[in-house]
Amino acid sequence: MQIAKMTEADFRRFWPTFKSVVAARETYAFDPGLGYADAYTLWCELPQFTYCAKENGEVLGSYYLKPNAAGPGAHICNCGYMVAPQARGRGIARALCLHSQELAIEAGYLAMQFNAVVSTNEGAIRLWQSLGFDTIGRVPKGYDHARFGLVDTYIMYKALRGEAGNASGSDP
Amino acid sequence: MQIAKMTEADFRRFWPTFKSVVAARETYAFDPGLGYADAYTLWCELPQFTYCAKENGEVLGSYYLKPNAAGPGAHICNCGYMVAPQARGRGIARALCLHSQELAIEAGYLAMQFNAVVSTNEGAIRLWQSLGFDTIGRVPKGYDHARFGLVDTYIMYKALRGEAGNASGSDP
Repeated sequence: MQIAKMTEADFRRFWPTFKSVVAARETYAFDPGLGYADAYTLWCELPQFTYCAKENGEVLGSYYLKPNAAGPGAHICNCGYMVAPQARGRGIARALCLHSQELAIEAGYLAMQFNAVVSTNEGAIRLWQSLGFDTIGRVPKGYDHARFGLVDTYIMYKALRGEAGNASGSDP
Repeated sequence: MQIAKMTEADFRRFWPTFKSVVAARETYAFDPGLGYADAYTLWCELPQFTYCAKENGEVLGSYYLKPNAAGPGAHICNCGYMVAPQARGRGIARALCLHSQELAIEAGYLAMQFNAVVSTNEGAIRLWQSLGFDTIGRVPKGYDHARFGLVDTYIMYKALRGEAGNASGSDP
């Protein structure tokens, strides 16, 4: 398996995964009716970086990385990860998240933040916790889950350089 | 004072306020170098609604209202408020926030969320608390403040219909 920048051809192969994840309405706060062109814009054009995990020409998963806010909030990045149904349980999300943290550090970010981790997505929460993310907030009924209705979401955060902010130059 | 939909002519009168608030880098996570056209898009075109408080043709303040996320996250709205320097201390922000809550309820939102209230902005925090907003999260060093450097930000939240979610029809 290799992780490389996502091309438009990669996204075309990834599209069935993207569509099924969004249509499931269990993990992502994207419009479930999002078409191909808007999805490509959202996943590959608006973010700063988009990478994918590939094996024998197959796209196993992908992530995007972008600033979580503009200007005085642009030192924290935000990422999203998706793994193809047939590739789950193989550590792809973990590999993608580790790759994204390296990339974020290279790009100068001080921290990484996930804004809406759905509270029923226990596998993801355990994974992010095992990778050092803390839950820094909880939004009551933040997500309208296809099966469970309104459920809470968590805000999760990881400082990327020891304590966030040490890279600003103010500490020795 | 009246609160009405913001026109492009209103925004032109409001522009010095917008520019000074963003350039101050003390409260908003917007690019401090944002030009007029991009600012207009951000404040008046991307949001679902934009209103302003006017008195004798002068624009005293403004707010936008938009969904805080898409699809399964679109039942929570997000707002931003700005008050002209010469109009501060007159309750304009409170009046705008009350107006935005009414509008949000009419538009079907279940809750309102502020994603990055700068922790040093004590007046705003007191105001939102007095209007029923709870602090539901804290982002360590989330904001690069012009005078104080990296400071925390708060996520603040208010259910708009008793407990958020009662409007979904699942409760009597």
